Amino acid sequence: MNRQIVLHSRPTGPPTAANFALVERPMPEPGDGDVLTRTLWLSLDPYMRGRMNDAKSYASPVALGEVMVGGTVGEVVASRDPRFSAGDIVLGSGGWQAYAVLPGRSLRKLDPGLAPISSALGVLGMPGMTAYVGLLDLGRPRAGETVVVSAASGAVGSVVGQIAKLKGCRAVGVAGGAEKCRYVVDTLGLDACVDHRAPGLDEALARACPNGVDVYFENVGGAVQQAVWPLLNQFARVPVCGLIAQYNDPAPRPGPSLWWVLRKRLAVSGFIVSDHPGRSEDFLRDMSAWVREGRVRYREDVIEGLERAPEAFIGLLEGRNFGKLIVRVAS
Amino acid sequence: MNRQIVLHSRPTGPPTAANFALVERPMPEPGDGDVLTRTLWLSLDPYMRGRMNDAKSYASPVALGEVMVGGTVGEVVASRDPRFSAGDIVLGSGGWQAYAVLPGRSLRKLDPGLAPISSALGVLGMPGMTAYVGLLDLGRPRAGETVVVSAASGAVGSVVGQIAKLKGCRAVGVAGGAEKCRYVVDTLGLDACVDHRAPGLDEALARACPNGVDVYFENVGGAVQQAVWPLLNQFARVPVCGLIAQYNDPAPRPGPSLWWVLRKRLAVSGFIVSDHPGRSEDFLRDMSAWVREGRVRYREDVIEGLERAPEAFIGLLEGRNFGKLIVRVAS
Repeated sequence: MNRQIVLHSRPTGPPTAANFALVERPMPEPGDGDVLTRTLWLSLDPYMRGRMNDAKSYASPVALGEVMVGGTVGEVVASRDPRFSAGDIVLGSGGWQAYAVLPGRSLRKLDPGLAPISSALGVLGMPGMTAYVGLLDLGRPRAGETVVVSAASGAVGSVVGQIAKLKGCRAVGVAGGAEKCRYVVDTLGLDACVDHRAPGLDEALARACPNGVDVYFENVGGAVQQAVWPLLNQFARVPVCGLIAQYNDPAPRPGPSLWWVLRKRLAVSGFIVSDHPGRSEDFLRDMSAWVREGRVRYREDVIEGLERAPEAFIGLLEGRNFGKLIVRVAS
Repeated sequence: MNRQIVLHSRPTGPPTAANFALVERPMPEPGDGDVLTRTLWLSLDPYMRGRMNDAKSYASPVALGEVMVGGTVGEVVASRDPRFSAGDIVLGSGGWQAYAVLPGRSLRKLDPGLAPISSALGVLGMPGMTAYVGLLDLGRPRAGETVVVSAASGAVGSVVGQIAKLKGCRAVGVAGGAEKCRYVVDTLGLDACVDHRAPGLDEALARACPNGVDVYFENVGGAVQQAVWPLLNQFARVPVCGLIAQYNDPAPRPGPSLWWVLRKRLAVSGFIVSDHPGRSEDFLRDMSAWVREGRVRYREDVIEGLERAPEAFIGLLEGRNFGKLIVRVAS
């Protein structure tokens, strides 16, 4: 039998354990061109909250009773695609389940000798490339400028801040709690990190950005966004990558006044990494080198067992994870 | 004596006649490098509302008792700059006054044989170039796309809509009142124009944009913005040129949710034409040709006499003008 976590009901506001159900279903059979994989690692990411809503977004919602979507690293158990054979380690979209049947053309083979395979879900995968494309192509940071990134210890934010440093910028993080902030400065090497849970966020951020803000890499929205906005310099760029503090809102909340967009000639741009497939070679080349050379560091927050995925995901939306959140589904 | 209209007091909300004062002051004397000009035409433009506030914007506010700023076409009366002599017609920033002393280096000589001199304040001047740069460089319209422009019969909007047509787009205007809408379609040649004063704005706009909106050239904000926003397609561009419906607000009002920016990967960009001086040659070349060939048409709303400038400006903020608003200060 296969074990799956399915969407049992749609959340109103923050998701709860009752929105998910662990079910057992017969082991799936690969059709022609398909590959049966055993899930080793499951990635948990904020975008999944959007898929729980019954609203058309850039991707379709998960249907009730369907397996929750998600990126996975798995081991090939059986293959009906000649490019894969049993024992191969592959990156794919297996979802929240112990086994998955996936089209061979949707999989990428990983070389376990090159990098830890779980990093294909983080720094060398979708979150890392999101940081790379969003900061470099939309943020367009120039040496000497100030880059602020929210969720700075997270999967995307931690990479954004380190690339900003590599490009010669002043990099300022915003994170929740003193421990994360210490990590952002001491381990990741950002110039400063402001704790959004401590009182005086606005003042602390202003002190950390004496020359204002030229790039705000937006991951969270909410109070952090409000603190950053008045500090934006003329011609600042705001890549909008995520709004995790607002994902549980019943309706979209208003944004910053376009008056500031006009007055300061801001460039505010939403983006999704999958719109930029042409950058994946550049990303893999650069990021592999940076990680190998120790110039980009990463941290994983490992959850043991598929059955704990719902609880871990609920915690992710509350900022309880510390580093890239992944679930060890099997060893 | 010189006649001037000065800022007498700062408005709270909509400006009134009491915010302005007509004063007489001694005729100014040109210093070395200066030119004394007699104002023939004064341009009235929405940005002037911002200068009446005591707030640092992209330009300094007008001080109390100071002459209101504004673009002018004038005749040289006396020159202490060797490049100009009496009788020359020049474009400059003379402000709301009958005579102005201006640095010669800030002036551009106009050839009255080439185009009506007042057009240097409109279609061949700052408003025309605003439309050109904003639509082409920030809006990046592609043939077949839908471009919506608010204030579509105005100085900037009328040019935006016509350039959109020249580029092979479906061009949809929004204007206030049936007469302006007829003009936008019948004379300017846009595909449709929606009257924002008539009931059912949202529905009418949706009907006029069956394929959604790829570029929204934002001149007004307010209810028109709210009607356009849900129609924006993925990857739509929103050049933010003006927010005239919000200029009288005591504080900036919230903008559209960044959730839409993220979900639809919008590019929302504020801009001011003076940031793009490198495009002025392209603009003058293209726009002169388009006007000469009758491919871009324009309409002027001429007010007679400097003393009527305040009333005309107040009307501009209410949409009472019809075409580029200019004041004939002298013949």
